[in-house]
Amino acid sequence: MTITTEKVLVDHLISFESHQSPFECAIRGIELPVIAEFERDGRLSCPDFKMTDRVVEADGAERTRTAFPNISRLTGNHVLTAVQSDVAPKGKRVAVLFSGGPAAGGHNVVAGIRRILGPDNTLFGIKAGPLGLMLGDCFEIGLSDVDGILNTGGFDFLGSDRTKIKTAEDMARVLATVQKFKLDGIIVVGGDDSNTNAAFIADYLAPHDCAVIGVPKTIDGDLQVGDLVPISFGFDTATKIYSEIVGNILQDTPSSRKYWHFIKLMGRSASHVALEVALQTHPAVTLISEEIAARNMTLSQVVEQIAEAVVARAASGINHGVVLIPEGVIEFIPEIKALVRVSNEFMAGDDVPTASMAARVQRFGNHLNSDMKILFAGLPESIQTKLLMDRDSHGNLQVSQIPSEELFIELTEKRVAELDPAVKFAPLNHFFGYEGRCGAPTRFDAVYTYNLGLVAGALVVRGKSGYMAGVSDIASGGKGVAIPLSGLITTERRSGGDHMVIKKALVEMESPAFKFFESRREAWAKSDMFSSPGPRQLWGPLGNQVPMTVALNLGAESLGFLIGR
Amino acid sequence: MTITTEKVLVDHLISFESHQSPFECAIRGIELPVIAEFERDGRLSCPDFKMTDRVVEADGAERTRTAFPNISRLTGNHVLTAVQSDVAPKGKRVAVLFSGGPAAGGHNVVAGIRRILGPDNTLFGIKAGPLGLMLGDCFEIGLSDVDGILNTGGFDFLGSDRTKIKTAEDMARVLATVQKFKLDGIIVVGGDDSNTNAAFIADYLAPHDCAVIGVPKTIDGDLQVGDLVPISFGFDTATKIYSEIVGNILQDTPSSRKYWHFIKLMGRSASHVALEVALQTHPAVTLISEEIAARNMTLSQVVEQIAEAVVARAASGINHGVVLIPEGVIEFIPEIKALVRVSNEFMAGDDVPTASMAARVQRFGNHLNSDMKILFAGLPESIQTKLLMDRDSHGNLQVSQIPSEELFIELTEKRVAELDPAVKFAPLNHFFGYEGRCGAPTRFDAVYTYNLGLVAGALVVRGKSGYMAGVSDIASGGKGVAIPLSGLITTERRSGGDHMVIKKALVEMESPAFKFFESRREAWAKSDMFSSPGPRQLWGPLGNQVPMTVALNLGAESLGFLIGR
Repeated sequence: MTITTEKVLVDHLISFESHQSPFECAIRGIELPVIAEFERDGRLSCPDFKMTDRVVEADGAERTRTAFPNISRLTGNHVLTAVQSDVAPKGKRVAVLFSGGPAAGGHNVVAGIRRILGPDNTLFGIKAGPLGLMLGDCFEIGLSDVDGILNTGGFDFLGSDRTKIKTAEDMARVLATVQKFKLDGIIVVGGDDSNTNAAFIADYLAPHDCAVIGVPKTIDGDLQVGDLVPISFGFDTATKIYSEIVGNILQDTPSSRKYWHFIKLMGRSASHVALEVALQTHPAVTLISEEIAARNMTLSQVVEQIAEAVVARAASGINHGVVLIPEGVIEFIPEIKALVRVSNEFMAGDDVPTASMAARVQRFGNHLNSDMKILFAGLPESIQTKLLMDRDSHGNLQVSQIPSEELFIELTEKRVAELDPAVKFAPLNHFFGYEGRCGAPTRFDAVYTYNLGLVAGALVVRGKSGYMAGVSDIASGGKGVAIPLSGLITTERRSGGDHMVIKKALVEMESPAFKFFESRREAWAKSDMFSSPGPRQLWGPLGNQVPMTVALNLGAESLGFLIGR
Repeated sequence: MTITTEKVLVDHLISFESHQSPFECAIRGIELPVIAEFERDGRLSCPDFKMTDRVVEADGAERTRTAFPNISRLTGNHVLTAVQSDVAPKGKRVAVLFSGGPAAGGHNVVAGIRRILGPDNTLFGIKAGPLGLMLGDCFEIGLSDVDGILNTGGFDFLGSDRTKIKTAEDMARVLATVQKFKLDGIIVVGGDDSNTNAAFIADYLAPHDCAVIGVPKTIDGDLQVGDLVPISFGFDTATKIYSEIVGNILQDTPSSRKYWHFIKLMGRSASHVALEVALQTHPAVTLISEEIAARNMTLSQVVEQIAEAVVARAASGINHGVVLIPEGVIEFIPEIKALVRVSNEFMAGDDVPTASMAARVQRFGNHLNSDMKILFAGLPESIQTKLLMDRDSHGNLQVSQIPSEELFIELTEKRVAELDPAVKFAPLNHFFGYEGRCGAPTRFDAVYTYNLGLVAGALVVRGKSGYMAGVSDIASGGKGVAIPLSGLITTERRSGGDHMVIKKALVEMESPAFKFFESRREAWAKSDMFSSPGPRQLWGPLGNQVPMTVALNLGAESLGFLIGR
C-alpha cells in the first residue's frame, strides 16, 4: 500500500477495529446511575434484602409448591426489597450465564454483578450458556475485565445457547460444576423458559447451599410481572431499532409513492414488539396476534382487513402503506394451526405421493374435510407446497416455518384484485429480527440492566435463592426487588402432557397500550399519519425514554425513566 | 376508551403523530452552519459566482459540445466559485423537483433553496418529479413552509418519479410549464441520469432564458467529481444506517455462534456502499463488484473466496461470519452476464418447452456451448428456474432479478461441503435497501444538503445554467462551486447505440479507500475484528463524521467535516 498523506487517518481507522469504533469507545463512558440502596458515599455498596408482605402467586400454586418444595419454602413466595447494609459479604464464588437469544444489555448485567461483588468475591463467566454450565466451561472475570464490555451490545463476552437442563443426569452435571468451582451461586440471564429452568436448578441446588437467581431478558417483551418487572431487558433497544427502520420505510412510501411494505417483526408468540413499533410509527395496518385469537378470526378475515385498507387508501389516491406482522401471527389463527396439524399427520402416513408435488397437493386436498378443503385451495401454491414438503428428521412442520409475510402478500393481492381490479398494489416484504437483538443498548436498557446486575449479584452473595431480580419504580428512582420464581410458575397443558412454566405475558385486549392502539388505528389506516422515531440517541435531548407500551401500561405520565437520581 | 390516570400521556402520544415524534421535533432545531460566502452579518446573503480557470472535461468533449451547444458555450466547461455580492436578485421564479430514488437530505436542499431565494423571489415545488414538470403540477412554497421539513428524511414534501424527459414532445411540455409559471430557473435534484437529463433540458431551455441546475443526489455514491463533488448526498446517511444494522448482526454472530449472514446492500452498479459499510464494520468477506470485473473472475472463483473463508474460520472454531454483497455484483461477472443474454435469446425463440420447467431446463442445457453448460449445470435449481421463467412484456430478464444472495448461499454451501464436510455452515440472508433511503440525514448530509440548496438557489437566481451545484473543501469551511454539466458528459456505447451520459464513478482499484480495504481484509476474514459503529448520532460526540471512503480518497487526516465554521 502506498499511502502517504493520509497515513494519520489510516492508523486511526485501524485503531477502530475489534470493538473500538468511535461509538463503542464513547458509549463505554456513559454514566450509569444506580438505585439509592446500592450506593453509599458515592460508591457501590452491597445491600441486604428484607421480606415484604407482598406475595406473588400464579394459578395452581399448590401444584407448583409440590414441584418446587425447597424454594417455595425458602421464599414463601414473598417479594424481597433491597435495604442498605453495613456488612458486605466476602469470599463468595458466583457464576453467570446467558441463556437463549441475545438481547441488548446482557453485558451490563455481567458488569453490574461483577462490580457489586467487588474485590472480595469471585465471579466466573460460564461460556456458551446452560451447556457450558453442565460442561463446567468457566473462566474468572476480573474487576477490570468488564470495563471493555460496558454498554456494548451482544452476548459475545460469554456466548449463549439454548440447551435445557432437565434430566437428573443434567442436574448432576450442574452439581459437579458447582462443586468443582465451589460455587455459592449461579445467575441465569434468560427468558421465561430459562427462568423456569433456573427455578428447577435452584430447587435442586438448595440442599447444596448454592443460590440461583434469574434475570428477565427477552426482546419479545413477554416476560413481565406487573410493576415488579415492567419489561424484560432488550425489548426497548430492539423495538427502537425496528421502529427506526420501519419509520424510514414509512418515510419512503410517500416519497416513492408506489409500494406496500409487509414487515414481519421478530417476537415468537406475543405481539408486544409489533404493538410497540406501531405506537412509535403509526403504520396503516398492524396485526396483533392476540386480537386475532381473541376474536377467533379466520385467515380470510385477517386478509380482508388488510385488503380493505389497501382499497380505501387507493380511493384517496394513496397507493402505498406499511403492514406490520408479528412473527407468531400464524399460530394464532385457529384454522391454520389445524391445517398444519392435519398436514403433519398426512405426511407421516402411507398415502403420500412421491411422483410430483402436484399429485401430493391433489391427494391432500381430497383428504381434507370441506372447510379445510376450501382453506387449503385458497392458499398460494408456494404455501401449499410448503405444507407438503418432505419432513426432516423431526417429522413436524412448525407453523413458524410458513412465511406469513408472503402468505399475506399473495392473499391480499388476490383479494384487492377482487374488490377493485383498478387498484395499484405493489407489495414488498421484509423480516426484521437479528437486526435488533445485539445493538448497543438504549440508555434505558443500559441503566436498567446494570441495575438488574447489581440486584442479582447482591441477592446471590446474600444467599437468596429462587428469585428473579427486578427493578421496580423505574420512573421514580428505582427499587431493587426480588420476585419468587415459584410464585410465577403455573401448569400448562401442552402437547405431550403438563408442563410447569412461567406464563408468557401476552398483549391484553384490556391493557391501556392496546386500547390506545385500538383508538387510533383507523385514523392511521385512512391517511398517512406516521412518524419517524429516528435512530436511538445515546446523547442529547432524546436519551431517556421507555417503551410507549410500558409507559401506557404502568399509567406513567411521561415516557421518561429515572433510575438512581 | 377508559383511560384516566395516564390521560396526560395519551394526549402526549397523539401529539407525536404525523411527523411530530420527539425526534422529528428535536432535529428541526439542529443548527445548520453555512459557507462563509453565503452569510453577511449573521444573515443569509445571496452570493454571485465568478468563473475560475479550472476546466472540467470528460472523454469525447468535442462530441459533447456538439450535443450541448448552448450550455457548452455558456459555461465553457469552466468551474464557478461563489463570491460575496452586494446586490441580491429579485422577482425570480424558480421551480425544484426530485428525480429518482429518495436520499436523505432532499428536504434540506429545498429548504436551502427557499431561504437563499428569500422573500423577494418565488419558489415552486414540482410534484412527483420529471413527470410533474411535464404536467405543470406545481405549488408555491412559502418561506415558512420549509421549517417543518428541515432535517427530516424522505422526498415526500414533493414526491419523486423516474420519468425521462427526452423526446421533442417531452421538451415542449417542459417549455409549456416554464411559460405557464414564468419560470426563470429549474433545479433538478437527482443522480447521474437525472443530471444528464438536466443538461439536456438546460440546453433546450437556454434560448428561453430559463436556467437549469442539477444537485448531486444518490445513496449509491456513484456520482462524484473529485474534490468538487466528493460524494453525492444521501450516501453518508444510507451507509451509516446499513453500517449500524450490519454492525448489530456482526455483534450477533459470536453471541449466537452459529450463523453466516449473507447481506445484500443496495447500490445498483457501483460497490461504494458495500465498501463503506465494510470499512465501518470489518466483516469476514466483502465482495467488490469492480474488483471481480477487474480480475475477470468467474462465479466459482468468487464462491471459492467465500467458501475458503468459511472453512478457514471453522478451523479456528468460528462457525459464523458476515458476507457483504453489493446489489449489482452479478452484472460484473462476465460469464453470468453472457448466460443471461443467451437465456433471453432462448426464451424469445420458438424452441421453449411449455410442458414442464424440467423439460425447459433440459432443452436449454442442450442448447448451450460446453463452458456455459457447465456453468448452468452448476447453478442451484431455483436460479436455473429463474433464468427460464416466462418473460413479462419487456421480454428480458434483468441480471438484477437474480437473487444473488441466495445464489451465493447455495453455491457456498455446496463448495464448503466439498472442501470439508465436517464444517457447520448455517446461512441466513438479508437485503437492505429501502431502510437507508429515507432516514433522517446525518449531520453531514443535513449540513451538506442545506448548503447544496443554497448554492443551487443562488446559481439559478443569478441566471447560471447548465451546472451542477457543489460544495468543495468540506473539511475546511466549504466553498460553493458550480461544475459545468457538459464537462461531465461523455459518450457510452450501450445496447441500442451510443448514449450521452455522466460516467458513473465506480470503485477504483487504485483508490486509497480500496487499497486500505485490501490491506486489512485478510485479517478481518481470519478472526472476528469487527466493530459496531452504532446508530447515527445527531447529538453528542459523534455527530460530525464523513464517510470513511470519502475521507480516505480525499486524503483527509480525520473523519471530521467543517462546513461554515
